[in-house]
Amino acid sequence: MISGHVFIATSLDGYISRKDGGIDWLLSRGDPTEDLGYESFIESMDGIVMGRGTYEKVTSFETWPYTKPVVVLSQSLSQSSLPDNLRGKVRLMNLSPKDVMNLLTSEGWSKVYVDGGQVIQSFLRDDLIDDIVITVLPVLIGSGRTLFGSLNADVPVRHMRTTCFPSGLVQSVYKLK
Amino acid sequence: MISGHVFIATSLDGYISRKDGGIDWLLSRGDPTEDLGYESFIESMDGIVMGRGTYEKVTSFETWPYTKPVVVLSQSLSQSSLPDNLRGKVRLMNLSPKDVMNLLTSEGWSKVYVDGGQVIQSFLRDDLIDDIVITVLPVLIGSGRTLFGSLNADVPVRHMRTTCFPSGLVQSVYKLK
Repeated sequence: MISGHVFIATSLDGYISRKDGGIDWLLSRGDPTEDLGYESFIESMDGIVMGRGTYEKVTSFETWPYTKPVVVLSQSLSQSSLPDNLRGKVRLMNLSPKDVMNLLTSEGWSKVYVDGGQVIQSFLRDDLIDDIVITVLPVLIGSGRTLFGSLNADVPVRHMRTTCFPSGLVQSVYKLK
Repeated sequence: MISGHVFIATSLDGYISRKDGGIDWLLSRGDPTEDLGYESFIESMDGIVMGRGTYEKVTSFETWPYTKPVVVLSQSLSQSSLPDNLRGKVRLMNLSPKDVMNLLTSEGWSKVYVDGGQVIQSFLRDDLIDDIVITVLPVLIGSGRTLFGSLNADVPVRHMRTTCFPSGLVQSVYKLK
Protein backbone atom coordinates (compact mmCIF):
# COMPACT_ATOMS: atom_id res chain seq x y z
CA MET A 1 0.00 0.00 0.00
CA ILE A 2 1.35 3.44 -0.91
CA SER A 3 1.99 5.79 2.01
CA GLY A 4 2.49 9.53 2.46
CA HIS A 5 5.23 10.96 4.67
CA VAL A 6 5.82 14.49 5.90
CA PHE A 7 9.18 16.00 6.87
CA ILE A 8 8.83 19.65 7.78
CA ALA A 9 10.04 22.44 10.03
CA THR A 10 7.82 24.84 12.00
CA SER A 11 8.26 27.75 14.34
CA LEU A 12 7.35 27.04 17.98
CA ASP A 13 3.99 28.66 17.25
CA GLY A 14 3.32 26.20 14.43
CA TYR A 15 4.01 28.18 11.26
CA ILE A 16 5.80 26.77 8.21
CA SER A 17 6.26 30.19 6.61
CA ARG A 18 5.29 33.81 7.05
CA LYS A 19 2.05 34.97 5.40
CA ASP A 20 4.02 35.96 2.28
CA GLY A 21 5.76 32.58 2.20
CA GLY A 22 8.97 33.93 3.77
CA ILE A 23 11.25 31.45 5.55
CA ASP A 24 14.02 33.83 6.65
CA TRP A 25 13.34 32.89 10.32
CA LEU A 26 13.99 29.26 9.37
CA LEU A 27 17.06 29.72 7.19
CA SER A 28 18.76 31.82 9.87
CA ARG A 29 18.44 29.13 12.56
CA GLY A 30 19.90 25.71 13.25
CA ASP A 31 23.39 24.51 12.56
CA PRO A 32 24.10 23.42 8.96
CA THR A 33 26.42 20.70 10.27
CA GLU A 34 23.62 19.09 12.30
CA ASP A 35 22.20 15.99 10.63
CA LEU A 36 18.44 16.34 10.94
CA GLY A 37 17.93 13.14 8.95
CA TYR A 38 16.58 14.76 5.79
CA GLU A 39 19.00 12.98 3.45
CA SER A 40 18.18 9.52 4.75
CA PHE A 41 14.48 10.41 4.77
CA ILE A 42 14.42 11.53 1.15
CA GLU A 43 16.58 8.57 0.11
CA SER A 44 13.86 6.23 1.39
CA MET A 45 11.15 7.92 -0.73
CA ASP A 46 10.15 7.06 -4.31
CA GLY A 47 9.37 10.69 -5.05
CA ILE A 48 7.77 13.92 -3.94
CA VAL A 49 4.26 15.35 -4.26
CA MET A 50 3.96 19.08 -3.67
CA GLY A 51 1.63 21.96 -4.37
CA ARG A 52 2.08 24.84 -6.76
CA GLY A 53 3.17 27.22 -3.99
CA THR A 54 6.03 25.00 -2.87
CA TYR A 55 7.00 24.34 -6.49
CA GLU A 56 7.21 28.04 -7.26
CA LYS A 57 9.20 28.63 -4.07
CA VAL A 58 11.67 25.92 -5.02
CA THR A 59 12.05 27.15 -8.60
CA SER A 60 13.14 30.51 -7.16
CA PHE A 61 16.22 28.78 -5.72
CA GLU A 62 19.40 28.79 -7.82
CA THR A 63 19.43 25.06 -8.39
CA TRP A 64 16.74 22.39 -8.44
CA PRO A 65 17.35 20.57 -5.13
CA TYR A 66 15.64 17.24 -5.81
CA THR A 67 17.13 14.05 -7.24
CA LYS A 68 13.84 12.15 -6.89
CA PRO A 69 10.91 12.55 -9.30
CA VAL A 70 8.55 15.38 -8.39
CA VAL A 71 4.80 15.64 -8.95
CA VAL A 72 3.28 19.12 -8.68
CA LEU A 73 -0.45 19.29 -8.01
CA SER A 74 -1.92 22.33 -9.71
CA GLN A 75 -5.19 23.37 -11.25
CA SER A 76 -3.62 26.25 -13.16
CA LEU A 77 -0.18 25.11 -14.35
CA SER A 78 0.15 22.78 -17.31
CA GLN A 79 2.98 20.51 -18.40
CA SER A 80 3.84 22.94 -21.20
CA SER A 81 4.67 25.65 -18.64
CA LEU A 82 7.63 23.64 -17.36
CA PRO A 83 11.03 25.15 -18.05
CA ASP A 84 13.30 22.95 -20.19
CA ASN A 85 15.64 22.06 -17.32
CA LEU A 86 12.78 20.44 -15.37
CA ARG A 87 11.40 18.24 -18.13
CA GLY A 88 11.79 14.63 -17.09
CA LYS A 89 12.13 15.70 -13.45
CA VAL A 90 8.74 17.27 -12.78
CA ARG A 91 5.22 16.29 -13.76
CA LEU A 92 2.25 18.63 -13.34
CA MET A 93 -1.04 16.98 -12.42
CA ASN A 94 -4.52 18.26 -11.73
CA LEU A 95 -5.65 15.40 -9.51
CA SER A 96 -7.12 14.91 -6.05
CA PRO A 97 -4.86 13.48 -3.31
CA LYS A 98 -6.50 10.05 -3.61
CA ASP A 99 -6.28 10.01 -7.40
CA VAL A 100 -2.61 11.00 -7.45
CA MET A 101 -1.80 8.30 -4.89
CA ASN A 102 -3.68 5.72 -6.97
CA LEU A 103 -1.80 6.79 -10.10
CA LEU A 104 1.57 6.62 -8.32
CA THR A 105 0.67 3.19 -6.94
CA SER A 106 0.06 2.00 -10.50
CA GLU A 107 3.54 3.26 -11.37
CA GLY A 108 5.10 1.23 -8.56
CA TRP A 109 5.70 4.00 -6.00
CA SER A 110 5.30 2.94 -2.38
CA LYS A 111 6.57 5.89 -0.31
CA VAL A 112 5.73 9.50 -1.13
CA TYR A 113 7.20 12.64 0.46
CA VAL A 114 4.23 14.99 0.74
CA ASP A 115 5.31 18.64 0.96
CA GLY A 116 3.69 22.07 1.14
CA GLY A 117 1.13 23.39 3.59
CA GLN A 118 -2.06 23.09 1.54
CA VAL A 119 -1.10 19.72 0.08
CA ILE A 120 -0.15 18.27 3.48
CA GLN A 121 -3.47 19.47 4.93
CA SER A 122 -5.51 17.94 2.09
CA PHE A 123 -3.62 14.63 2.34
CA LEU A 124 -4.19 14.61 6.12
CA ARG A 125 -7.92 15.18 5.65
CA ASP A 126 -8.00 12.25 3.20
CA ASP A 127 -6.11 9.99 5.67
CA LEU A 128 -3.17 9.56 3.28
CA ILE A 129 -0.33 10.44 5.67
CA ASP A 130 1.40 7.64 7.57
CA ASP A 131 3.84 9.66 9.59
CA ILE A 132 5.08 13.17 10.22
CA VAL A 133 8.55 14.34 11.18
CA ILE A 134 8.23 17.83 12.68
CA THR A 135 11.31 19.86 13.50
CA VAL A 136 10.41 22.76 15.81
CA LEU A 137 12.63 25.83 15.63
CA PRO A 138 13.18 27.92 18.77
CA VAL A 139 11.34 31.05 17.67
CA LEU A 140 7.84 32.54 17.78
CA ILE A 141 6.95 34.41 14.57
CA GLY A 142 3.42 35.45 15.53
CA SER A 143 1.64 34.84 12.23
CA GLY A 144 2.00 32.96 8.98
CA ARG A 145 0.90 29.80 7.22
CA THR A 146 0.17 26.97 9.62
CA LEU A 147 1.31 23.40 9.16
CA PHE A 148 -2.02 21.97 10.22
CA GLY A 149 -5.48 22.93 9.05
CA SER A 150 -9.08 22.05 9.67
CA LEU A 151 -10.06 18.39 9.97
CA ASN A 152 -13.28 16.43 9.66
CA ALA A 153 -12.64 14.85 13.07
CA ASP A 154 -9.93 14.53 15.72
CA VAL A 155 -6.89 12.60 14.48
CA PRO A 156 -5.13 10.66 17.24
CA VAL A 157 -1.42 10.23 16.56
CA ARG A 158 1.28 8.10 18.17
CA HIS A 159 4.48 9.70 19.40
CA MET A 160 7.40 7.58 18.20
CA ARG A 161 10.49 9.52 19.26
CA THR A 162 11.85 13.00 19.87
CA THR A 163 15.41 14.16 19.28
CA CYS A 164 16.86 17.39 20.65
CA PHE A 165 19.68 19.11 18.79
CA PRO A 166 22.31 21.37 20.36
CA SER A 167 21.14 24.29 18.19
CA GLY A 168 17.77 24.18 19.97
CA LEU A 169 15.83 22.31 17.30
CA VAL A 170 13.46 19.62 18.59
CA GLN A 171 12.43 16.93 16.15
CA SER A 172 9.46 14.67 16.86
CA VAL A 173 8.15 11.76 14.84
CA TYR A 174 4.46 10.92 14.99
CA LYS A 175 2.69 7.99 13.34
CA LEU A 176 -0.86 8.49 12.15
CA LYS A 177 -1.57 4.87 11.23
CA MET B 1 12.49 41.16 39.39
CA ILE B 2 9.09 39.50 39.10
CA SER B 3 8.76 36.88 36.36
CA GLY B 4 5.89 35.18 34.52
CA HIS B 5 5.82 31.45 33.89
CA VAL B 6 3.56 29.36 31.68
CA PHE B 7 2.71 25.69 32.19
CA ILE B 8 0.23 24.50 29.59
CA ALA B 9 -0.90 21.61 27.40
CA THR B 10 -1.67 21.82 23.68
CA SER B 11 -2.78 19.48 20.94
CA LEU B 12 -0.12 18.68 18.34
CA ASP B 13 -1.72 21.35 16.16
CA GLY B 14 -1.23 23.97 18.86
CA TYR B 15 -4.68 24.38 20.42
CA ILE B 16 -5.29 24.78 24.15
CA SER B 17 -9.04 24.20 23.80
CA ARG B 18 -11.76 23.78 21.21
CA LYS B 19 -13.48 26.93 19.94
CA ASP B 20 -16.14 26.54 22.65
CA GLY B 21 -13.47 26.08 25.33
CA GLY B 22 -13.86 22.29 25.43
CA ILE B 23 -10.92 20.25 26.69
CA ASP B 24 -12.40 16.74 26.36
CA TRP B 25 -9.54 15.79 23.98
CA LEU B 26 -7.09 16.74 26.76
CA LEU B 27 -8.84 15.12 29.72
CA SER B 28 -9.14 11.82 27.85
CA ARG B 29 -5.40 11.54 27.19
CA GLY B 30 -2.26 10.99 29.20
CA ASP B 31 -1.81 8.76 32.20
CA PRO B 32 -2.95 10.24 35.55
CA THR B 33 -0.06 8.46 37.29
CA GLU B 34 2.52 10.24 35.13
CA ASP B 35 4.23 13.09 36.97
CA LEU B 36 4.28 15.97 34.48
CA GLY B 37 5.84 18.26 37.08
CA TYR B 38 2.79 20.45 37.66
CA GLU B 39 2.83 20.08 41.44
CA SER B 40 6.48 21.12 41.79
CA PHE B 41 5.93 23.92 39.26
CA ILE B 42 2.97 25.41 41.13
CA GLU B 43 4.73 24.95 44.46
CA SER B 44 7.51 27.26 43.23
CA MET B 45 5.06 30.05 42.30
CA ASP B 46 3.80 32.85 44.55
CA GLY B 47 0.43 32.83 42.85
CA ILE B 48 -1.56 32.68 39.64
CA VAL B 49 -2.77 35.33 37.20
CA MET B 50 -5.50 34.23 34.81
CA GLY B 51 -8.18 35.67 32.56
CA ARG B 52 -11.91 35.65 33.03
CA GLY B 53 -12.37 32.73 30.62
CA THR B 54 -10.04 30.46 32.56
CA TYR B 55 -11.56 31.59 35.86
CA GLU B 56 -15.07 30.75 34.68
CA LYS B 57 -13.86 27.38 33.37
CA VAL B 58 -12.26 26.56 36.71
CA THR B 59 -15.31 27.65 38.73
CA SER B 60 -17.32 25.10 36.73
CA PHE B 61 -15.22 22.34 38.35
CA GLU B 62 -16.55 20.71 41.51
CA THR B 63 -13.81 22.05 43.73
CA TRP B 64 -11.49 25.05 43.55
CA PRO B 65 -8.16 23.46 42.57
CA TYR B 66 -5.70 26.15 43.69
CA THR B 67 -3.94 26.50 47.04
CA LYS B 68 -2.03 29.60 45.88
CA PRO B 69 -3.58 33.08 45.66
CA VAL B 70 -5.31 33.79 42.33
CA VAL B 71 -5.66 37.09 40.49
CA VAL B 72 -8.32 37.21 37.77
CA LEU B 73 -7.92 39.92 35.14
CA SER B 74 -11.31 41.11 33.99
CA GLN B 75 -12.89 44.26 32.68
CA SER B 76 -16.41 43.06 33.43
CA LEU B 77 -16.29 41.13 36.72
CA SER B 78 -16.04 42.95 40.03
CA GLN B 79 -14.91 41.78 43.46
CA SER B 80 -18.54 41.74 44.62
CA SER B 81 -19.37 39.04 42.05
CA LEU B 82 -17.12 36.54 43.82
CA PRO B 83 -18.91 33.62 45.47
CA ASP B 84 -18.39 33.40 49.23
CA ASN B 85 -16.15 30.34 49.07
CA LEU B 86 -13.59 32.22 46.93
CA ARG B 87 -13.27 35.33 49.07
CA GLY B 88 -9.72 35.54 50.35
CA LYS B 89 -8.56 33.18 47.59
CA VAL B 90 -9.34 35.21 44.46
CA ARG B 91 -8.91 38.88 43.62
CA LEU B 92 -10.48 40.46 40.56
CA MET B 93 -8.46 43.20 38.89
CA ASN B 94 -8.98 45.38 35.86
CA LEU B 95 -5.31 46.06 35.13
CA SER B 96 -2.90 45.74 32.23
CA PRO B 97 -0.29 42.94 32.35
CA LYS B 98 2.46 45.41 33.28
CA ASP B 99 0.36 47.08 35.97
CA VAL B 100 -0.64 43.81 37.59
CA MET B 101 2.99 42.66 37.64
CA ASN B 102 4.02 45.96 39.24
CA LEU B 103 1.30 45.61 41.86
CA LEU B 104 2.29 42.02 42.65
CA THR B 105 5.94 43.05 42.88
CA SER B 106 4.96 45.63 45.50
CA GLU B 107 3.26 42.82 47.43
CA GLY B 108 6.45 40.74 47.40
CA TRP B 109 5.57 38.23 44.69
CA SER B 110 8.49 37.09 42.55
CA LYS B 111 7.16 34.18 40.44
CA VAL B 112 3.75 34.27 38.76
CA TYR B 113 2.00 31.39 37.01
CA VAL B 114 0.32 33.03 34.00
CA ASP B 115 -2.61 31.01 32.67
CA GLY B 116 -5.28 31.26 29.99
CA GLY B 117 -4.90 31.83 26.26
CA GLN B 118 -5.63 35.55 26.01
CA VAL B 119 -3.70 36.43 29.15
CA ILE B 120 -0.66 34.39 28.11
CA GLN B 121 -0.68 36.11 24.70
CA SER B 122 -0.90 39.60 26.20
CA PHE B 123 1.89 38.85 28.70
CA LEU B 124 4.04 37.49 25.85
CA ARG B 125 3.48 40.65 23.80
CA ASP B 126 4.53 42.72 26.82
CA ASP B 127 7.67 40.61 27.33
CA LEU B 128 6.57 39.47 30.77
CA ILE B 129 7.07 35.71 30.34
CA ASP B 130 10.37 34.14 31.40
CA ASP B 131 9.72 30.56 30.44
CA ILE B 132 7.10 28.24 29.00
CA VAL B 133 6.52 24.58 29.74
CA ILE B 134 4.48 23.13 26.86
CA THR B 135 3.13 19.61 27.05
CA VAL B 136 2.06 18.41 23.59
CA LEU B 137 -0.68 15.80 23.46
CA PRO B 138 -0.68 13.23 20.66
CA VAL B 139 -3.80 14.38 18.83
CA LEU B 140 -4.80 16.81 16.08
CA ILE B 141 -8.11 18.56 16.81
CA GLY B 142 -8.26 20.74 13.69
CA SER B 143 -9.53 23.98 15.19
CA GLY B 144 -9.81 25.81 18.49
CA ARG B 145 -8.14 28.47 20.58
CA THR B 146 -4.41 28.68 19.94
CA LEU B 147 -1.78 28.97 22.64
CA PHE B 148 0.15 31.62 20.74
CA GLY B 149 -1.14 34.77 19.10
CA SER B 150 0.13 37.71 17.11
CA LEU B 151 3.35 39.41 18.13
CA ASN B 152 4.95 42.77 17.50
CA ALA B 153 8.16 41.03 16.35
CA ASP B 154 9.77 37.59 16.25
CA VAL B 155 10.52 36.23 19.72
CA PRO B 156 13.59 33.99 19.80
CA VAL B 157 13.40 31.37 22.54
CA ARG B 158 15.94 28.96 24.02
CA HIS B 159 15.15 25.26 24.21
CA MET B 160 16.09 24.04 27.69
CA ARG B 161 14.94 20.41 27.76
CA THR B 162 12.34 18.01 26.42
CA THR B 163 10.90 15.02 28.26
CA CYS B 164 8.91 12.26 26.57
CA PHE B 165 6.32 10.34 28.57
CA PRO B 166 5.21 6.75 27.91
CA SER B 167 1.63 7.94 27.27
CA GLY B 168 2.87 9.90 24.23
CA LEU B 169 3.02 13.33 25.85
CA VAL B 170 6.07 15.43 24.94
CA GLN B 171 6.98 18.23 27.33
CA SER B 172 9.39 20.97 26.28
CA VAL B 173 10.74 23.86 28.31
CA TYR B 174 11.68 27.10 26.55
CA LYS B 175 13.24 30.17 28.11
CA LEU B 176 12.35 33.56 26.65
CA LYS B 177 14.84 35.60 28.65
